[in-house]
Amino acid sequence: MKNSLNREIPDELLKDGIEVFQGAYARENYEYKKDAPTVKANVASGDSKLVDSIKAAIEQAGLKDGMTISFHHHLRNGDYVCAKVMDVIHEMGIKDLFVCASSLGKAHANMVPMIEDGTVTGISTSGVRDEIGEALSMGKLKHPAWIRTHGGRVRAIETGQVHIDVAFIAASSSDVLGNASGKNGRHDCGVLSYADVDAKYADKVVVITDTINPVPNFPAPIQAVDVDYVVKIDQIGDPAKIASGALRLTKDVRELKMAENCAKVVANTPWFKEGFSFQTGAGGASLAVTQFLKPYMDERDIRMGWGMGGITEPMVQMFREGYIDKLINDQAFDIPSVESVYNDSNHFEISCSQYANPMNKGAFVNYLDYVILGALEVDTDFNVNVVQGSDGMIQGAPGGHPDTAAGAKCTIIVAPLIRSRLSTVRRQVTSVTTPGETVDVVVTDYGVAVNPARKDILEALEQTDLPLISIEELADIAESITGTPAPLEFEDKVVALIEYRDGTIIDVIKKPILK
Amino acid sequence: MKNSLNREIPDELLKDGIEVFQGAYARENYEYKKDAPTVKANVASGDSKLVDSIKAAIEQAGLKDGMTISFHHHLRNGDYVCAKVMDVIHEMGIKDLFVCASSLGKAHANMVPMIEDGTVTGISTSGVRDEIGEALSMGKLKHPAWIRTHGGRVRAIETGQVHIDVAFIAASSSDVLGNASGKNGRHDCGVLSYADVDAKYADKVVVITDTINPVPNFPAPIQAVDVDYVVKIDQIGDPAKIASGALRLTKDVRELKMAENCAKVVANTPWFKEGFSFQTGAGGASLAVTQFLKPYMDERDIRMGWGMGGITEPMVQMFREGYIDKLINDQAFDIPSVESVYNDSNHFEISCSQYANPMNKGAFVNYLDYVILGALEVDTDFNVNVVQGSDGMIQGAPGGHPDTAAGAKCTIIVAPLIRSRLSTVRRQVTSVTTPGETVDVVVTDYGVAVNPARKDILEALEQTDLPLISIEELADIAESITGTPAPLEFEDKVVALIEYRDGTIIDVIKKPILK
Repeated sequence: MKNSLNREIPDELLKDGIEVFQGAYARENYEYKKDAPTVKANVASGDSKLVDSIKAAIEQAGLKDGMTISFHHHLRNGDYVCAKVMDVIHEMGIKDLFVCASSLGKAHANMVPMIEDGTVTGISTSGVRDEIGEALSMGKLKHPAWIRTHGGRVRAIETGQVHIDVAFIAASSSDVLGNASGKNGRHDCGVLSYADVDAKYADKVVVITDTINPVPNFPAPIQAVDVDYVVKIDQIGDPAKIASGALRLTKDVRELKMAENCAKVVANTPWFKEGFSFQTGAGGASLAVTQFLKPYMDERDIRMGWGMGGITEPMVQMFREGYIDKLINDQAFDIPSVESVYNDSNHFEISCSQYANPMNKGAFVNYLDYVILGALEVDTDFNVNVVQGSDGMIQGAPGGHPDTAAGAKCTIIVAPLIRSRLSTVRRQVTSVTTPGETVDVVVTDYGVAVNPARKDILEALEQTDLPLISIEELADIAESITGTPAPLEFEDKVVALIEYRDGTIIDVIKKPILK
Repeated sequence: MKNSLNREIPDELLKDGIEVFQGAYARENYEYKKDAPTVKANVASGDSKLVDSIKAAIEQAGLKDGMTISFHHHLRNGDYVCAKVMDVIHEMGIKDLFVCASSLGKAHANMVPMIEDGTVTGISTSGVRDEIGEALSMGKLKHPAWIRTHGGRVRAIETGQVHIDVAFIAASSSDVLGNASGKNGRHDCGVLSYADVDAKYADKVVVITDTINPVPNFPAPIQAVDVDYVVKIDQIGDPAKIASGALRLTKDVRELKMAENCAKVVANTPWFKEGFSFQTGAGGASLAVTQFLKPYMDERDIRMGWGMGGITEPMVQMFREGYIDKLINDQAFDIPSVESVYNDSNHFEISCSQYANPMNKGAFVNYLDYVILGALEVDTDFNVNVVQGSDGMIQGAPGGHPDTAAGAKCTIIVAPLIRSRLSTVRRQVTSVTTPGETVDVVVTDYGVAVNPARKDILEALEQTDLPLISIEELADIAESITGTPAPLEFEDKVVALIEYRDGTIIDVIKKPILK
């Protein structure tokens, strides 16, 4: 069956109420009863929840074949916790698990043999990179993987599509009752935003930390009232890989030019006024946008009401310089942002539901004025792919891309037209992550294309010296340089479902035939 | 049918799964699936949630006859919001409502005619005082009122015993999306702890405030993701009655002596050590205990790890003087504690579920070392009554009394033996609020009685010069002074159920025959 983007979704995948994508806003006002965990009352036990080992916690939590477990990715490539837990599970011989991760990457390579031997038979994740990306692309997982946006993961859990039996929550610090945090430990990751929904909706919740602080370990985004067990291990992660040092701002002239044009788009559209809201990514050009915004803000004498993200040092700097009233943080990308959150009094942690869930009563993405996002590919319908390489391999992550694009009043994609001799702007993306109806402006090094559906933005930008160009012309230029790319070939086997944030299937990824 | 305290509970009340009280800890490990709200997805609307009036919010929320609505009592006797909402509902002619309030008092007297005319036919509340107390005592409400503890109310909502259709949450400040707080407004009440469960479990949530701040109105204990509508009114309450000025410490010699003895009990029991936890009430003797604790803490060179409550100025002072590491606050009783919460960096708001819910995975009451509580009556089984006057009228509130008593390692009741020529210590309490098995020490002006079940405490206190006495002797002394009180007479009609925190019925209140 074809979805509204004309993407073919095999019928056999459309079971258990799963529907094809019908438009970014088709499920507005969808009504449902939220899911909830099954919990055991602690009427009066004043005991510590410390258990001796990860194994003891798994046993006490009653983990069994066929269950669903979860992890978050705030420790990024420095995460030791997920791998340790999986090793223990593997040793215990538990099979057929569904792993509901907020993202997976290099730190989780030990899961590959467990995918091969049936320990892990299902996966839900945003990021699918490195060894795991390769294993999934090659169809080694028993069931197709679910590739979910950050908001979509919360939605899947809150609606009950995914029910977590046991959540494993790595924490930089905790007390013996489970009040846990991404701060105040030996290896701080800043926030635990993605784990909020796990703590609230999983039947059993295990906090794993290397730093036990006195009760109450406040502020604590993960609350003891939701935690069953606390495990202390030697080290939760590799600090060098949990948060990067100060990200160096790009010196690439092409990236700087694109960043400058992004800032010019922002400064010349109607939402650039006192109190505007803004999010940008951690990529080279995205990161550089902030420095080009400041002169426009000075000129207009306006301040940003709130900056959101994916917080990085440039945003923290702007905030400290008084350009931004409040920072709201669902992920701290670098050491300066890890240090700032909670310590700077107007820099707040938010949960991922507050950030991006399309099915609560209004996530912050809905109130974004501007978001600057990257792309692997953009097509002439403005559909964006950030998940699948042009070679067919899964190598990216939707993250908050589709969430912020759907919510923001002005969604700006910034990407070079050509990368490694492959064109970014094409007639059709290899697979769709973010639907074109939610993408407004594409800033490339060959010009700025505005989605024709956004006449308001086009009119505004026609008053500027920005190099406007149609998306088709960009595709023409790209093709004239790179030639028409040979179509990829795929087997019939679907290795991953790309789920749109609202739970519908926006595309599928099939096993590529490598040449 | 009689419960385990030998209290007769009429069989006709034992329906819908309601059971009689079977012991304070009988429901330890009770397993259940939590309730959840039905919500409507806000996929991408970036609209403000402001509606023009309380009436418009009620209409849009779809409030109908027979539904359940809720209020919190953080504005105490200064609350204008509940009365305003009820007036609008009354004008709209909506009938047969169940009002699930965290407490009711003088500010809610306008509900009395609505009880009489069938607008309100059911009530759940902790406090039942003043005009409403009289109306309920006289049996004017169609169904018996539910008198619930603070923890019990959260438990009732989280287990689904009470499902709130529309929650009305008075807030000192909010933004147009519903991020709401007890701070940063024109009429601050400090915290919104009791409203946390309403926001999370009610189908429709209406925030009512007189102060709209820019988005995001952070910190915000009530999150926009749970809020449907925001109403701005002129004034949420009378500041003089929302929080009292500095409470004057008692100069009553008898109260001071009892407070001194309470402190001596604390200082001579095994939990008085570095990092101990402590809660005390706002009554004269309870409040005075803190000043007597300091010399003992100095002598031992120890600090309190955390103080909880019901926070008052003496606790804030001890905290600022360095005697307490952290304050955790579910209710700010006076202006100094309202001002301190959030502003003092280690003074935190907690939800009422975190505070006292017996059926989550461990509320803070479970980890209390000491709690100092008051009593209207104590009987020779150490059962305590804080709800019903010795004249049979409902005039009190369980509040957190049964919750903290059940949780704390050492529960100390402080009360004068005789008040207004009525004895506090009696053979039998008029009705049981807090079961004797959870009460450890009773400090009176005629001596200190230790529950014989607590041999550890008795042994510890025998090493001191405290005037130990048995509870029976206290009753004897009281009787010798006041004479044997004539038994009260009641009609058969049950006007209120006293629900224990775990949802069982610990006692009932019948309509008194006034003489």
